[in-house]
Amino acid sequence: MSTDIDLSDYQTRRASLIDEDRSLRREFISSRLRSAKEIEADKIVRKIRALEAETIWQQDYPSIPHPFPGMEFLTGKSIIMRTKIFEILSKMPKGALLHAHLDATVNAEFLLELALKQPGIHLRVNKPFVASPLSENLPEFRILPETQFSNLLSLADVSYTPGSWISLQNARKSFPTHLGGQDGFDSWVVGSMTINPAEATFLTSTGLIRVEPIFSEYIREFFRSSIRDGISYIEARINFLFKNMYGADGQENIPHREWLVMFDRIMNETKAEMEAQGRPDDFIGARIIYSTIRFITSEELEWYLEDCIALKKEFPHLIAGFDLVGHEDSLHPLIYYIKPLLRFRERQREEGVDIPFIFHAGETLGDGTQADINLYDAILLGTKRIGHGYSLIKHPKLMETCRLMGIAVEVCPISGCGQRLTSSMPMHPLPVLLNTGVPVALCSDDPAVFGNMGLTFDYYQVLVASEITGLSTLGALARDSIEFSTLGEEEKKRALAGFERRWETFVGDIVE
Amino acid sequence: MSTDIDLSDYQTRRASLIDEDRSLRREFISSRLRSAKEIEADKIVRKIRALEAETIWQQDYPSIPHPFPGMEFLTGKSIIMRTKIFEILSKMPKGALLHAHLDATVNAEFLLELALKQPGIHLRVNKPFVASPLSENLPEFRILPETQFSNLLSLADVSYTPGSWISLQNARKSFPTHLGGQDGFDSWVVGSMTINPAEATFLTSTGLIRVEPIFSEYIREFFRSSIRDGISYIEARINFLFKNMYGADGQENIPHREWLVMFDRIMNETKAEMEAQGRPDDFIGARIIYSTIRFITSEELEWYLEDCIALKKEFPHLIAGFDLVGHEDSLHPLIYYIKPLLRFRERQREEGVDIPFIFHAGETLGDGTQADINLYDAILLGTKRIGHGYSLIKHPKLMETCRLMGIAVEVCPISGCGQRLTSSMPMHPLPVLLNTGVPVALCSDDPAVFGNMGLTFDYYQVLVASEITGLSTLGALARDSIEFSTLGEEEKKRALAGFERRWETFVGDIVE
Repeated sequence: MSTDIDLSDYQTRRASLIDEDRSLRREFISSRLRSAKEIEADKIVRKIRALEAETIWQQDYPSIPHPFPGMEFLTGKSIIMRTKIFEILSKMPKGALLHAHLDATVNAEFLLELALKQPGIHLRVNKPFVASPLSENLPEFRILPETQFSNLLSLADVSYTPGSWISLQNARKSFPTHLGGQDGFDSWVVGSMTINPAEATFLTSTGLIRVEPIFSEYIREFFRSSIRDGISYIEARINFLFKNMYGADGQENIPHREWLVMFDRIMNETKAEMEAQGRPDDFIGARIIYSTIRFITSEELEWYLEDCIALKKEFPHLIAGFDLVGHEDSLHPLIYYIKPLLRFRERQREEGVDIPFIFHAGETLGDGTQADINLYDAILLGTKRIGHGYSLIKHPKLMETCRLMGIAVEVCPISGCGQRLTSSMPMHPLPVLLNTGVPVALCSDDPAVFGNMGLTFDYYQVLVASEITGLSTLGALARDSIEFSTLGEEEKKRALAGFERRWETFVGDIVE
Repeated sequence: MSTDIDLSDYQTRRASLIDEDRSLRREFISSRLRSAKEIEADKIVRKIRALEAETIWQQDYPSIPHPFPGMEFLTGKSIIMRTKIFEILSKMPKGALLHAHLDATVNAEFLLELALKQPGIHLRVNKPFVASPLSENLPEFRILPETQFSNLLSLADVSYTPGSWISLQNARKSFPTHLGGQDGFDSWVVGSMTINPAEATFLTSTGLIRVEPIFSEYIREFFRSSIRDGISYIEARINFLFKNMYGADGQENIPHREWLVMFDRIMNETKAEMEAQGRPDDFIGARIIYSTIRFITSEELEWYLEDCIALKKEFPHLIAGFDLVGHEDSLHPLIYYIKPLLRFRERQREEGVDIPFIFHAGETLGDGTQADINLYDAILLGTKRIGHGYSLIKHPKLMETCRLMGIAVEVCPISGCGQRLTSSMPMHPLPVLLNTGVPVALCSDDPAVFGNMGLTFDYYQVLVASEITGLSTLGALARDSIEFSTLGEEEKKRALAGFERRWETFVGDIVE
């Protein structure tokens, strides 16, 4: 009898401890009540998840030893795509995409198609073509002025010397039959722009993208494919370097303002397209986080900050913020740029503009290293959000600051795995952020490189790697991606209202 | 000018934010002032660590691709042993060892030597000996009564049938020359009791250890080797199952109290040995955490709890606490045993004894899984410490409870890697615990299996994987291992005083 009383008392204390421990999770602190339909949909999704963990994830796949939900993405992707959960999530409204590098947002096949329309696009290889294994001989791309068009006909020609440019169209047409002909060419080029599980290393497709006529169509496809995945608003990081954009004439002379003009035009065309389809909620718009790279000097940064201010003044609706990108462990830390960064705030006051910092910081496994320490500087400099923030969980004071000040972390689950910060989702710090109530927006980072196009794959990985996380958690994450965007209050309201309409339909469809 | 002022203001705020963020670290909250010598020794160690990261850890090792400090232990061990840091740490006083499973604490070579002295020890294999690759044909051990001694002479004999016992001595003497003769036999047996990087799976040497004459000498070697490594006090987990110990006569009939009598005798002999050497500080003593395994039923647990109480009454100085061990993800969770565990507290009151729970909990990558949820039950049941607590960092409320209530986490850095919870130290949750001020004791868990004998390797891995952690951090961890032991106040004082004397010498030696 006494044990029975103890037991019920124990169970009460236990339930309340668990609740208290999870009380900071943002799906629980929302003032919004979950609808009966959402609660039911959440249960259904949990059931399917449990079932698929025992079935699809337990089968034998010859090339995938020991598969499990949340496993390293590149290896597990083919299994993910067979699941019902993936099918469901692909229809989920995702809110905003707040962290993606424009140059890695459109799939490589599409980019190649765009490039093949431009007769000026050339490629070269830097090792003897015939002697080298194809996969180790990477192509380099550039658009050339008409006067420099190459008359070379084939990479495989004995007369081809490494380093010589050949037109993309010719190289493709003449690609040797024993290497697969034109299909072989396509796989080779596409493969050079993506990574596979064995070699998690980056390759740049910048030579194809930063060409005026390609750039605008590339952006259009980025918007369209995002919309297909349920993303309704985008803040894209674009790297601005002094030149870095070619015209159709092969001259590297397209000024930064022209990039924004293109971006604006395509955004407006895409909005009009969606309105014409009666789907205005499905695309609110897009903005740019002006980014430059941490290899520039502190003096050079001053020029970019002024460039950013000038662009903000001309396109106030397009510039969302400023960031410094690039590998944090090896490039300059934020503190190196501290003088111009502090000065930037004064300059903004002088010019009457507001450009929040939205810094990459803590994208590292280090503890007390310069990349880890970037987190202190990002926060002291007033960053609006933190890109990656992988090492944030090591910092109790900074975690508290993020929670209390509403600094969201742009968590990129799949990119984190691809970059070897973690080898699978169960090792990812995301659950710590969620349980501690730090706002999080799930992001795709470099989807064209890792193959996680859209946000469905990222939401999938997060959902299947936790027993706590459910459909309501994903909904809260999607709402927070809008909440912690740089949209103004009115725009946010409209975006959230649109999201709620779509969410209602989404959970309704699951229940039916 | 204004930027200069801003800058110095910024630097001040930055330093104070970093300080505040790290202010919970236990090396900073100690009332004990660091001596000038310790500060100097800390600096020296940091210098050597930085130098070795650039030299020894950057060299090419044919069998070790991309080595780095803190890498997966089994692969990196041979590099660790070449370093000056390892040499220094091997001389460091380590305080207490609070988490080690007795059956995996003595190196396999030594155990084999002990076993070879017992003519009754037999072995068998369960696959045809000649046909199977040696490494896949694992030996099983048992002591047999004299009436059942085997007259088989060789495993390699054509007449040997799998499953037949053969005496250990004979099997060794007759081991085929083409398999390396007696040396080949020794490597085979030792290999079967340890793991290598390729196959992180456990094997039991229990059949050799749980034999009365071996058991006591095994314990003696455990104590001696721990003392050689600078460990001065031990709380060892011993698995108690109903029978589970053989006499020299081959009968499985040695009662639990005899195990404690042996433990007590060897402990006293070891203390006397150290006193005779004029080193009484070097071995304070040892206790037992009575453990049984999570595969028993809830009803069976009642018997073990009563057995534990009876042993505590007879040997109050030996029983330190109670634990349930075994793989948390697959065996029974704590909540399954809740009735007898709650009843245990009443029974202790009735019997006038105090046996704290010292539970394994959260040794998992899961989020909200039963192993993760064990943490709530461990804490609600009043656990004195938490074994592993790998998933604790996901629980803000429990982290706070551990910090405020002084519940230490027994962190086993190398075992965590060996068991694939993490693939290297930079992914380990330890820095989160340290920065959040949760008390930690570094432990070796199953050193004979992973090859991390003593605590030097564990301290090494922790030191080289963080820029924040220094010699003073290791000192604080060692002090906490004493502080959070089950020693009484007076014993603790004596142990800490002894530690301080040794620490003073240790840092003095580094400076010289």
